[in-house]
Amino acid sequence: MTVTDTAAAPATDEELALLDRYWRAANYLSVGQIYLLDNPLLAEPLAPEHIKPRLLGHWGTTPGLNFMYAHCNRAIRARDLDAIFLAGPGHGGPAVVANTYLEGVYSETYPHIGENTEGLRRLFRQFSFPGGIPSHAAPQTPGSINEGGELGYSLMHATGAVFDDPDLLAVCTIGDGEAETGPLATSWHAPAFLDPARDGAVLPILHLNGYKIANPTVLARLPEEQLLSLITGWGWEPFVVSGDDPALMHRAFADVLDTVLDRIAAIQQQARSGERPAGEPARWPMIVFRSPKGWTGPKVVDGQQVEGTFRAHQVPLSEVRTNPEHLRQLEDWLRSYRAEELFDDQGRLLPELAALAPEGDRRMGANPHSNGGLLLKDLELPEFRDYAVRVDAPGAGMTPATTVLGEWLRDVMRLNPTRFRLFGPDETASNRLQAVFGVTDRAWQEPIVDTDDHLATDGRVMEVLSEHLLQGWLEGYLLTGRHGLLNTYEAFAHIVDSMVNQHAKWLHDINGIPWRRDLASLNYLLSSHVWRQDHNGSSHQDPGFIDHVINKKAELARVYLPPDANCLLSVADHVLRSRQYINVIVAGKQPQLDYLTMDEAIAHCTRGVGIWDWASTTDGEPDVVLGSAGEVPTMEALAAADLLRQHLPDLKVRFVNVVDLMRLQSPDEHPHGMDDRDFDAVFTSDKPVVFAFHGYPTLIHRLTYKRQNHSQFHVHGYIEEGTTTTPFDMVMMNRLDRFSLAMHVIDRVPSLGSSQAVLRQRLMDARLAARRYTRVHGEDDPAIANWTWPRA
Amino acid sequence: MTVTDTAAAPATDEELALLDRYWRAANYLSVGQIYLLDNPLLAEPLAPEHIKPRLLGHWGTTPGLNFMYAHCNRAIRARDLDAIFLAGPGHGGPAVVANTYLEGVYSETYPHIGENTEGLRRLFRQFSFPGGIPSHAAPQTPGSINEGGELGYSLMHATGAVFDDPDLLAVCTIGDGEAETGPLATSWHAPAFLDPARDGAVLPILHLNGYKIANPTVLARLPEEQLLSLITGWGWEPFVVSGDDPALMHRAFADVLDTVLDRIAAIQQQARSGERPAGEPARWPMIVFRSPKGWTGPKVVDGQQVEGTFRAHQVPLSEVRTNPEHLRQLEDWLRSYRAEELFDDQGRLLPELAALAPEGDRRMGANPHSNGGLLLKDLELPEFRDYAVRVDAPGAGMTPATTVLGEWLRDVMRLNPTRFRLFGPDETASNRLQAVFGVTDRAWQEPIVDTDDHLATDGRVMEVLSEHLLQGWLEGYLLTGRHGLLNTYEAFAHIVDSMVNQHAKWLHDINGIPWRRDLASLNYLLSSHVWRQDHNGSSHQDPGFIDHVINKKAELARVYLPPDANCLLSVADHVLRSRQYINVIVAGKQPQLDYLTMDEAIAHCTRGVGIWDWASTTDGEPDVVLGSAGEVPTMEALAAADLLRQHLPDLKVRFVNVVDLMRLQSPDEHPHGMDDRDFDAVFTSDKPVVFAFHGYPTLIHRLTYKRQNHSQFHVHGYIEEGTTTTPFDMVMMNRLDRFSLAMHVIDRVPSLGSSQAVLRQRLMDARLAARRYTRVHGEDDPAIANWTWPRA
Ligand SMILES: Cc1ncc(C[n+]2csc(CCOP(=O)(O)OP(=O)(O)O)c2C)c(N)n1
Ligand SMILES: Cc1ncc(C[n+]2csc(CCOP(=O)(O)OP(=O)(O)O)c2C)c(N)n1
Ligand SMILES: [Mg+2]
Ligand SMILES: [Mg+2]
Repeated sequence: MTVTDTAAAPATDEELALLDRYWRAANYLSVGQIYLLDNPLLAEPLAPEHIKPRLLGHWGTTPGLNFMYAHCNRAIRARDLDAIFLAGPGHGGPAVVANTYLEGVYSETYPHIGENTEGLRRLFRQFSFPGGIPSHAAPQTPGSINEGGELGYSLMHATGAVFDDPDLLAVCTIGDGEAETGPLATSWHAPAFLDPARDGAVLPILHLNGYKIANPTVLARLPEEQLLSLITGWGWEPFVVSGDDPALMHRAFADVLDTVLDRIAAIQQQARSGERPAGEPARWPMIVFRSPKGWTGPKVVDGQQVEGTFRAHQVPLSEVRTNPEHLRQLEDWLRSYRAEELFDDQGRLLPELAALAPEGDRRMGANPHSNGGLLLKDLELPEFRDYAVRVDAPGAGMTPATTVLGEWLRDVMRLNPTRFRLFGPDETASNRLQAVFGVTDRAWQEPIVDTDDHLATDGRVMEVLSEHLLQGWLEGYLLTGRHGLLNTYEAFAHIVDSMVNQHAKWLHDINGIPWRRDLASLNYLLSSHVWRQDHNGSSHQDPGFIDHVINKKAELARVYLPPDANCLLSVADHVLRSRQYINVIVAGKQPQLDYLTMDEAIAHCTRGVGIWDWASTTDGEPDVVLGSAGEVPTMEALAAADLLRQHLPDLKVRFVNVVDLMRLQSPDEHPHGMDDRDFDAVFTSDKPVVFAFHGYPTLIHRLTYKRQNHSQFHVHGYIEEGTTTTPFDMVMMNRLDRFSLAMHVIDRVPSLGSSQAVLRQRLMDARLAARRYTRVHGEDDPAIANWTWPRA
Repeated sequence: MTVTDTAAAPATDEELALLDRYWRAANYLSVGQIYLLDNPLLAEPLAPEHIKPRLLGHWGTTPGLNFMYAHCNRAIRARDLDAIFLAGPGHGGPAVVANTYLEGVYSETYPHIGENTEGLRRLFRQFSFPGGIPSHAAPQTPGSINEGGELGYSLMHATGAVFDDPDLLAVCTIGDGEAETGPLATSWHAPAFLDPARDGAVLPILHLNGYKIANPTVLARLPEEQLLSLITGWGWEPFVVSGDDPALMHRAFADVLDTVLDRIAAIQQQARSGERPAGEPARWPMIVFRSPKGWTGPKVVDGQQVEGTFRAHQVPLSEVRTNPEHLRQLEDWLRSYRAEELFDDQGRLLPELAALAPEGDRRMGANPHSNGGLLLKDLELPEFRDYAVRVDAPGAGMTPATTVLGEWLRDVMRLNPTRFRLFGPDETASNRLQAVFGVTDRAWQEPIVDTDDHLATDGRVMEVLSEHLLQGWLEGYLLTGRHGLLNTYEAFAHIVDSMVNQHAKWLHDINGIPWRRDLASLNYLLSSHVWRQDHNGSSHQDPGFIDHVINKKAELARVYLPPDANCLLSVADHVLRSRQYINVIVAGKQPQLDYLTMDEAIAHCTRGVGIWDWASTTDGEPDVVLGSAGEVPTMEALAAADLLRQHLPDLKVRFVNVVDLMRLQSPDEHPHGMDDRDFDAVFTSDKPVVFAFHGYPTLIHRLTYKRQNHSQFHVHGYIEEGTTTTPFDMVMMNRLDRFSLAMHVIDRVPSLGSSQAVLRQRLMDARLAARRYTRVHGEDDPAIANWTWPRA
């Protein structure tokens, strides 16, 4: 059942001979995909019209992937392993397609690609062909959870996949070029975080084929001793398989694979029987697989060495249609695999080879972990209403919103011990989610000392100082059917911008692939946000992550800016129930005013946008709309409303708060969008709107530019000004402060303007006085810092 | 003069005793900065009113940084080193400020912070104080080239700083938390790229203080043997200094520092006398410095261990104003440094201590390399007109634009052998810039074999499969006064989004700091762009990097979309001459039509926006404007213009091309902005504008939403659709194709609409036929792919 069921007999020579044929079949199918339009089994001599007009794809990595995949099959059968396969170099798509075809999964998934000559023809033709399939290990590819187009994430995906899944083995091939990326480089620290008792196992296979696109790779050229020292230093036990003679390589690899799987089984057995020594991460085995790039492909093309060099990276023979010598070389190459020993004359894999694949769900292409939605269960969520902050009057009391959320999350973690994890770069406590440590700890396999805080081998809070690693682990966890939340500094969420892109593409593709099931959403809590970097200043101030996410498909992107603790609870509950989204919640960890009772908060968050009548001075047509989105801007906008009602009691102000940013768009742009009638009802079609926004002002313009009243939208937000200073100085630097907002109202309401020049000047003076106060006292004027909404 | 002037006498005990006092002085100043408003030398008993109301900053890392800095001073004096200091944990700002103050640089730079008691008072007060200085090693801090707020970039900055600067030593402290980040983890591969003959030396000091914010660090908890194995594996020779007894630590560190500097000198001497063995990277020394976090600070606070734990990270005593016990502890702590042995009664550092600092520019705070603009010289640029493509008629011939650029860049590299480098993730050749290999190679210190291509120890083309590393190296190179260009896949530029943010903040701050000199711009060439991912498909398709850059301050952000090779040359020349910008050029590597002669190209790029009369059917008021920006969209828009002139000869079309995207904004938003009169003259104030854009359509809306005619802007661009397919299928998927554009013109020009229903249907059919063609033939219909602008 699991890797723990150990020790298989060594491979016999016959087995290895069959395995070699299986590998040849996979190689044949891979070359076929790259080159052939027709004549799939070379029933007739190869002719130019059998060749694709555009030769696209990557051969170099492919034979190595095929080799590893075939050997994994043997191990799975011998040990009944529950295993998935990650192709780090996802550009080796032909390999994953070929193997899932050979094991029968491909034809089950895509019946028009049958197990016969016509099926082969279609399999070949569709690859990188218009209307066909992508060149990478994409969501369309059965068995894949790692597209591998943007290199660097395979090992973190593999690691996330096995959290809380003790029976799973993630075999992870890693390109030696990929290994140069930062994300991959830090992924090697997995043993410090993987619990051999509660988690499954990762088997990294470092694919040292020596080259990337045009260069050798750093790791492949290290003296072997140094490479082993490096791997040992990362905490793994390396096993090297190296060579280019297939027969020798089969023997060596089969034996090493047996050894490492025994090792894994022993580690798991020890840990699961409680005999693991404390404070010693398991020394997991890994394999260094050194083989020629483009192995078994053309050796020399046009006088230049190709096999074993960077020239094998993409398409080794590039002029097959026009250059008869290339055509001949291709035919020789294809025939070198001796398809007649692999397929019958109907184009079906010979039975003795087909028998080498595992069966049913044990086939790596059919393993449900690679289609995580199949395994996904809803979270059991505690009733969030029970965690509500009591609000007797709006804007009177203060709560740090994340503290409250932490209590709810604690119980989420209690109720879902194997399918929810919390991720953060060393900031769970500083983000005030520390209540979760009431039920679990931070995962940590290294030694633990007295002065440490809430570390445990089986902790479910993942903390490491790498936003990449956290994101990648979380993705791996989600892709295999679980749930999670990543909390991080708002500014540093940009570190994973490109990873978000890739995950968004994956989610988008799932929506178009009937056999792929929906995944739990990718959830962010940005709680150390731009407005409260009291300790850190400018480098920690950037609210642009939401701009980035909004560029994703509307079907995926969701952005929430809950103004207080109860709204945060309501939003968080919604988000953890959702599927297939990228949810970004921005909510601070500092005490902030509470406005809404839980019932009001639920109504407000469900609506996404609401008029706050208690903060408005009219129920009817206003003279001006004060809009806000985000916790700090909402407080400033309310304080501005307070100023206006004191100084201009006749001014009719409508106060609008936006929680769900996507509501601002129109329904044809986003499913949450408000139609124009709704929008105009809330924001009017002709009155000035002074809007206090958490992020870059352009984002609001971008969302609303089509609205009739858009030219009257005046947005205050982050304009890239900031340093280490007081919270109010920070909003003043960006003209998001109450005084600036109130002045802007005066400027924009036609009836005020010059008649209120004195008031305007007083507000300006108040700004200057507030600034001066900070310069003298080093903190904000208490009259400002302690402002609350006046009781009726 | 250089590290090569080797071997200093070992430190005497007297020297070390002095050095300890110097260190105490730095620690004293650091604690003073975090806590004190007044009473800087404790002339009177410490009272609550001497304490800052907001206690902000990071103590934990600071004593370690102070220790290293003081020891570097000794080495600089002993060996006359040309050295800079990078604080990886840039939150240790107090340490860098304290040290540059002690060496006199701070008061020279900021005369109001004098070397006396009042100066000390101001020095303390300003830190993390409104109107004062940031908490980090920011641009405001003399000597810094690494803000260290977003952790992970210190070692790559240090490496970039020493490229082509053989006499420079970059001492780089690295936080053990920082070392967990992906970017830092891959930075250790520097020895594979650093040429000991042509480049300077980096001395990494891994600061194992055991903790990050709330957690232990992975590296600090590894068994020492494993840690050394890891460091050796990365290719460095580790030297460990470990302990907490200051006297022992001073001796140990001084000796180790002497040893490693001797080692560096020996490596350089060997390499520079030509005796370096080929294919063996230098085994550079590095130091592991293990000392308690918050060393010399309070041991126990409120019953909890603080020194040597994560609790020392920020402010160890947090209630000094209100808790008398905290106040007492702070006073004891401050007095433990015995300021009376460090400063005279005027508050001036005692002369025997002041004498420990190096002199003049040898002081690390004054080293001109840390204010690179001081050293920056203009590039010698070859006359770009000489590289022009001959254009006899617009849109008739084809050139891959980057090939032409490569020829010019080759000569840039020839003319500037020590101050220009080209950076790219293994794609210089695939981006067709291979001409550069005519004058230099790829930097590579590992073994080189026959089949390798253009590798050399002293190469100046930097290729590694890490966008982070390339970006960080380039930043380090720019920050020390040199020039460079990074070419990368457009989609994968997002990998460095957050690094761009940090560099943008640095540039912005420079503009406000009189003593900081301007730097060369940060230049990107995105040439494997969204529209031509023929081999790769969806994961490689994302044009959002320009959206990201445009969120930066207008003073910094520049985006160019040259439509052809001559325009690319003109833009590139402009960009390499510029300072203080972030320039993004998007230009493809595939053959594209040439439109403009060199003179026309220069005029067009200087204007930034131009009406192409040869592609328009009127010189006067048009019925419709066809706009375009970007190479592929421009071709499609021209092909649409061609269709329109064939089918609707009476339609008055104006064709507008945009090279400089910032022109679309108004001048109050961006210095390149067009005023409304200009804008309306070009785009009309009331005619439909059908705009074909390279990136996300919302970007054009965001730039133009204030224009009078904005509601008539209809933008076609990337709508997140794509896969591995033909170029024309790709534009069709996103409705950016010529037929869709022409149909949109019909839909929007009031006089056409229903009267042209037949034509519209034909265009629709043409789209379908084009798609069908790809499905059948696997390539684009030659009638489409080979389209050229019709000769007059
Ligand atoms: C982050 C990233 N940068 C650049 C590329 C472009 N690229 C595609 S394949 C490749 C080389 C990969 O080399 P390696 O990981 O060794 O894979 P293999 O040799 O097995 O093909 C590169 C640089 C990429 N896919 N991802
Ligand atoms: C990329 C990034 N993520 C998170 C943080 C938040 N942060 C600030 S300091 C710190 C801990 C740093 O630990 P270390 O590098 O060991 O520095 P030191 O112990 O010397 O303070 C963290 C996680 C950050 N600054 N940068
Ligand atoms: Mg490789
Ligand atoms: Mg540390």
